[in-house]
Amino acid sequence: MKALYYDNQEKSARYLEDYEIPTPKPCESLIKILVSAICNTDKEILKGYKPDFCGVLGHEFVGSVIDSNNKELIGKRVVGEINESCGECIYCKTGREHHCINRKVIGITDKDGCFAEYMTIDTKLLHIVPDEIPSEVAIYTEPLAAALEIIEQAHIKPSDTVAVLGDGRLSYMISQAVSLTGADLTVVGRHEEKLEQFKSFSKTTTNTTDTFEIVIDATGSPTGILLAQKLVRKKGLIVIKSTYAGTVEIDMSYFVVNEITIMGSRCGPFKPALQLLKRGLVTLPPIDLYELKDYKKALESRSFKSGFRFI
Amino acid sequence: MKALYYDNQEKSARYLEDYEIPTPKPCESLIKILVSAICNTDKEILKGYKPDFCGVLGHEFVGSVIDSNNKELIGKRVVGEINESCGECIYCKTGREHHCINRKVIGITDKDGCFAEYMTIDTKLLHIVPDEIPSEVAIYTEPLAAALEIIEQAHIKPSDTVAVLGDGRLSYMISQAVSLTGADLTVVGRHEEKLEQFKSFSKTTTNTTDTFEIVIDATGSPTGILLAQKLVRKKGLIVIKSTYAGTVEIDMSYFVVNEITIMGSRCGPFKPALQLLKRGLVTLPPIDLYELKDYKKALESRSFKSGFRFI
Repeated sequence: MKALYYDNQEKSARYLEDYEIPTPKPCESLIKILVSAICNTDKEILKGYKPDFCGVLGHEFVGSVIDSNNKELIGKRVVGEINESCGECIYCKTGREHHCINRKVIGITDKDGCFAEYMTIDTKLLHIVPDEIPSEVAIYTEPLAAALEIIEQAHIKPSDTVAVLGDGRLSYMISQAVSLTGADLTVVGRHEEKLEQFKSFSKTTTNTTDTFEIVIDATGSPTGILLAQKLVRKKGLIVIKSTYAGTVEIDMSYFVVNEITIMGSRCGPFKPALQLLKRGLVTLPPIDLYELKDYKKALESRSFKSGFRFI
Repeated sequence: MKALYYDNQEKSARYLEDYEIPTPKPCESLIKILVSAICNTDKEILKGYKPDFCGVLGHEFVGSVIDSNNKELIGKRVVGEINESCGECIYCKTGREHHCINRKVIGITDKDGCFAEYMTIDTKLLHIVPDEIPSEVAIYTEPLAAALEIIEQAHIKPSDTVAVLGDGRLSYMISQAVSLTGADLTVVGRHEEKLEQFKSFSKTTTNTTDTFEIVIDATGSPTGILLAQKLVRKKGLIVIKSTYAGTVEIDMSYFVVNEITIMGSRCGPFKPALQLLKRGLVTLPPIDLYELKDYKKALESRSFKSGFRFI
């Protein structure tokens, strides 16, 4: 089958046409990929972010179940969570399967991903896509779930003032999700033209002296925390949503004296993400789809989201 | 009157015998100090931590009310909170008076402190000391309240595993307070001999590979956060309790990927601190008391706690 393979020796991606179709284990399903999407993490892997990983890239997909231990799923259109947990460790046994210490992560850690015609996946990670949601929209389930994780972790009240830092893709998804809480939302960005698209659901600014109860860093930059520090109220909350290579120098005493909380946030719940997409409460720009062989163009695309079409 | 005065021009303390007895404002009480105690913050001020402050040092005291707008308090033995709030700002109006942006802080910001025979204080900051508590014990109210602030901010469950980092005074107070929750507590220190005193209410270790749901940094060192990062479980909580000069270099992505929360914690509630001291549920070593003129000895004392006696 066709596959985009990451070789950690060569630190680059290779397009293959003869990669073997995987065989599902007893607990797994075989998925025919319909659409898969590129995430920033994929680009980070290509830059060397995961030196131990070697295999098919990609973790955002919509597919069709070809074979499964759960016969009811066969023929269904699905999306899939990305963390395959062991069920045995302290995290699995305390409701934190996403943090399983033995976990495999599709296209990221010890498990082939979805930039291929077929993929296997632990069946319990699958969610059926409601018929109302086209695949080009359902592809946003995983990143929207990650945005919802903020609301899963932190109580954002309708009366709160919230700032989201950044005017990119991550911020766009987070801002829409947060706007549904009714909170007084301001998106703080650098580019007037990018901020235009936020204006239907948020205030926007390129420069503010206001302060906010909750500040969400979606800048993708190590210095996002420093801007958040300036904008958050005393006793307020900073949610850090973006990962990046490199460290940042922090004066922790500021957070002690002002009793500020900093919360890291990663993967989130799929069911509510599918529900919001089905109801059209979160709307996202169309994904820019390529043939897998044109992966270089797809990786370089400046569209809101790009990916691959396998049909 | 006698007073220990910090002069920010000279960056040193001066012992005076002719400092004027202060006159209380309409909302204030005049306090005759019985006992006052040295806190690490006082030593930091002497090192230049508060370059804007000029005045009488000290913020931990037990005193007797000489005059007050609240006549019922006159003659009573009291302790006092340290943050004098404006009542008007966003923090005062949202239950965060400790963080008032116009606040004066006794012996720290814009307000003479308690290393003197008399002091004035906003009457609403006073708490009557129950007769059962000797002044030498009541002097611990303010630091114990600060320890309780952790439990005020974070839900520490009886079934949680908690590590407190540090084997000094701050850790001793925090560890005792946390031990009352019933949580499985481990104090992580560097000095076997200091850890001895923790053993009646906590496990102790100088080196652990265990992980904990909640890690409280009371090391007083910028690198405490890095040890906390190693010991905290994924999706766990780090409480930072110690302030220090200087920054620390942090890989924030670690906190995002592992969804760890970092919470700063400072001043706390006096009433429960007095209640625990009254019931003898928190016990602390005797304070080492000096005459004010012997302030250098008091500052250099290696006792658990040192301070001044004015009677």
